[in-house]
Amino acid sequence: MIGNLLQPELKELIRERDFGRLRETLEDFAPVDIAEILTDMEAADKAVLLRVLHKRQAAEVFEYLSMEDQESLLRALGSEEVAKILNELAPDDRTALLEELPAPATQKLLQLLRPEERKVAVGLLGYPKDSVGRRMTPRYVSIQQGWTVAQVLEHLRRVGRDQDTLNQLYVVDDRGCLVARVRLRVLVVAELNTPVVELLEQPVTALNVTDDQETAIEAFQKYDLTVLPVVDSHGCLVGVVTVDDILDVAEREATEDMQRLGGMEALDAPYLSIGLGRMIRKRAGWLALLFLGEMLTATAMGYFEGEIEKAVVLSLFIPLIISSGGNSGSQATSLIIRAMAVKDVSLADWWRVLWRELVAGVALGSVLAGIALIRILAWPTRAKLYGEHYFLIAITVALSLVGVVLFGSIMGAMLPFILRRLSFDPAVSSAPLVATLVDVTGLVIYFSVAYGILRGVLL
Amino acid sequence: MIGNLLQPELKELIRERDFGRLRETLEDFAPVDIAEILTDMEAADKAVLLRVLHKRQAAEVFEYLSMEDQESLLRALGSEEVAKILNELAPDDRTALLEELPAPATQKLLQLLRPEERKVAVGLLGYPKDSVGRRMTPRYVSIQQGWTVAQVLEHLRRVGRDQDTLNQLYVVDDRGCLVARVRLRVLVVAELNTPVVELLEQPVTALNVTDDQETAIEAFQKYDLTVLPVVDSHGCLVGVVTVDDILDVAEREATEDMQRLGGMEALDAPYLSIGLGRMIRKRAGWLALLFLGEMLTATAMGYFEGEIEKAVVLSLFIPLIISSGGNSGSQATSLIIRAMAVKDVSLADWWRVLWRELVAGVALGSVLAGIALIRILAWPTRAKLYGEHYFLIAITVALSLVGVVLFGSIMGAMLPFILRRLSFDPAVSSAPLVATLVDVTGLVIYFSVAYGILRGVLL
Repeated sequence: MIGNLLQPELKELIRERDFGRLRETLEDFAPVDIAEILTDMEAADKAVLLRVLHKRQAAEVFEYLSMEDQESLLRALGSEEVAKILNELAPDDRTALLEELPAPATQKLLQLLRPEERKVAVGLLGYPKDSVGRRMTPRYVSIQQGWTVAQVLEHLRRVGRDQDTLNQLYVVDDRGCLVARVRLRVLVVAELNTPVVELLEQPVTALNVTDDQETAIEAFQKYDLTVLPVVDSHGCLVGVVTVDDILDVAEREATEDMQRLGGMEALDAPYLSIGLGRMIRKRAGWLALLFLGEMLTATAMGYFEGEIEKAVVLSLFIPLIISSGGNSGSQATSLIIRAMAVKDVSLADWWRVLWRELVAGVALGSVLAGIALIRILAWPTRAKLYGEHYFLIAITVALSLVGVVLFGSIMGAMLPFILRRLSFDPAVSSAPLVATLVDVTGLVIYFSVAYGILRGVLL
Repeated sequence: MIGNLLQPELKELIRERDFGRLRETLEDFAPVDIAEILTDMEAADKAVLLRVLHKRQAAEVFEYLSMEDQESLLRALGSEEVAKILNELAPDDRTALLEELPAPATQKLLQLLRPEERKVAVGLLGYPKDSVGRRMTPRYVSIQQGWTVAQVLEHLRRVGRDQDTLNQLYVVDDRGCLVARVRLRVLVVAELNTPVVELLEQPVTALNVTDDQETAIEAFQKYDLTVLPVVDSHGCLVGVVTVDDILDVAEREATEDMQRLGGMEALDAPYLSIGLGRMIRKRAGWLALLFLGEMLTATAMGYFEGEIEKAVVLSLFIPLIISSGGNSGSQATSLIIRAMAVKDVSLADWWRVLWRELVAGVALGSVLAGIALIRILAWPTRAKLYGEHYFLIAITVALSLVGVVLFGSIMGAMLPFILRRLSFDPAVSSAPLVATLVDVTGLVIYFSVAYGILRGVLL
């Protein structure tokens, strides 16, 4: 809102090249607000605005910009200006930027960093993609066990300004291994002459630098903390991860899972900003694969062509029956994939899930069978629509529905377990994939039931 | 891990009724670890363990327990013990518990609270479900503009211990309206004689107490803060919301969206702990509704029964064609629902989305059409399988695929916009719902194309 009110005024200052007053006006603004103003500006003005800011403020504003704006600004600014901003960026935000860029651009930017910052950046980029190391900052405060509260506060006044978080302070031993922590909030309510050792707590947990970022989401949820320490394989403290980065990771993971559930590759970019060609490619792969699988329905139908010729009435219910299997499978697979993602269900629970889906499948199938029976048997023109054997047709449809819905529920629930057991991502078990598998089986179930009931009558 | 090692020892102490040593052993434990140990214990031991703890520690442990454990413990403990814990609970965690219980139980528990705590609890429960007020705590620190840093720190040492967060301190005017904030981390790195007024910042944003909790998720993501102030309609500060509660909300919202996308009501409970009957009811409603919709396919098929009788070969491709429409619709609707949830796409973007899906639909449909053409025309036994007019059949299938996939993409993408425009939750546009809508239309498209191409030949 501030942005909308001030933007014309700022534009005016840019047009008049009154950079002194521009800098003055912006000095009192929160970085996030400047970022918002900048986002709405024209490309040329963006670079001007960022150039005017003090380097520390420029870096903070930069951290709040979208990846697209960051990239285009890096291209628009001169090397010297880029260097200023990059050197000031928080190490975790810098990693997030560098890991998105193509390798040559990353290399070029790394050259612009001061040697000590470059060492940090290269180190963080060395951790595996999606690992905790990539979201970490090495800027944390460590303190000595022997200090008093007053000494710690004195230490903070000296070194605290450059740290990314002060919420937790850490005590490490000679080898750099994490031994204890103290919370800032405990520190500031304690008397000044209290020895720190009385306030120390065991670190409730530490993340491993190679842990998957999903582990970090869980840990933050479980322990309700705003910052967690990160250790290497020797237990040495190498950095900290803050909750704001984890909130972003949690949202991104949920987005990816939801897109996979819809039956495609995860887009890895906002819907409106991803290139149309790239989006189509991400969707075409799975769509084509599902199509190839679905071709088996044509094969199955070909196998039953004789039956259809004899009793065309059977074909009327094909879409109804196979889609009911697909729908129940979609329910089951979304439930289980999400339950696995939030750790409500683990691999060992497979038989409990199987049991629940067996019961649910029969119950849900019976509900649909009941509706179908009423619909067919109570319809005034039933004999005209479905022929003289409408009663047997109704029984065929009802029994097939129970079978297909039961199969769909079990298939949808078990596929994520099978995929995970084979070390695939269970989220690959998308609703469309389950529907495709169930379609083929659904046809076989339907025509087998029909054959059993209608043999000698219609078939 | 600590839990597994110690559990036998603790059990032993409980069996021996050595409560003194038990309390001593547990004193140094983090509440979250005690909660974990307690979760794995037998029901009777749980109450004993909690009873032994100091009331402050008991309340903290209680906050980390699952809703189920909390409820069963409330039943197992005496009124006096329940009162002790309830009075010590953080107001936001207490709301989370009370809002889950049936109304009579909530009333009974409210009576156990001290008058001042009861006033707080009733006030928080008075805010609408899913509003920011329900996740808020009224325990924050407000300070005076005229103070120095030393005075603020002195104030914190006096009142800070009972607050739920100290990360942000707030300055309010005579009417209680929020005027400024200061971050604890800025405060502790400043010299002691600095006037606070020099460190004040504008509150970047404030949540409204009646805002939806989704608004809070967005705000925390945008501003990267760990705590945000909450104001009433007059701008008066009424409490604060902390990021740990919001991380939980974000996960729960994503779960609900994913379950709706799978075609059912959100479960509102973990998969393995929800009653089987309740889960079946939550799934049966949508499944039955979709089934009623899908019955239209039988009606449509009945309408084309004559065509099928003349050319049974047409029926072979029905599952293939309608499922392709469903799959492309599932992709589009998952993309758009998620993009809306994370605010990548707003209502005003509908025409940009429509345009993208038009292009994507034609492209994706053409890919599938190409595969189908190859499959039919290059198959060695094509004439035997599909009859002498296999070429026309192939053209019919290919054209129908383009039409159906295009329709599926547009339908899947536009339905969330329509639902939101009508003030429904766009997440209701589930993959199965889109598939159902597309199935009926897909049949009409297929038989219309067939009629156009095969009239006079087969039909």
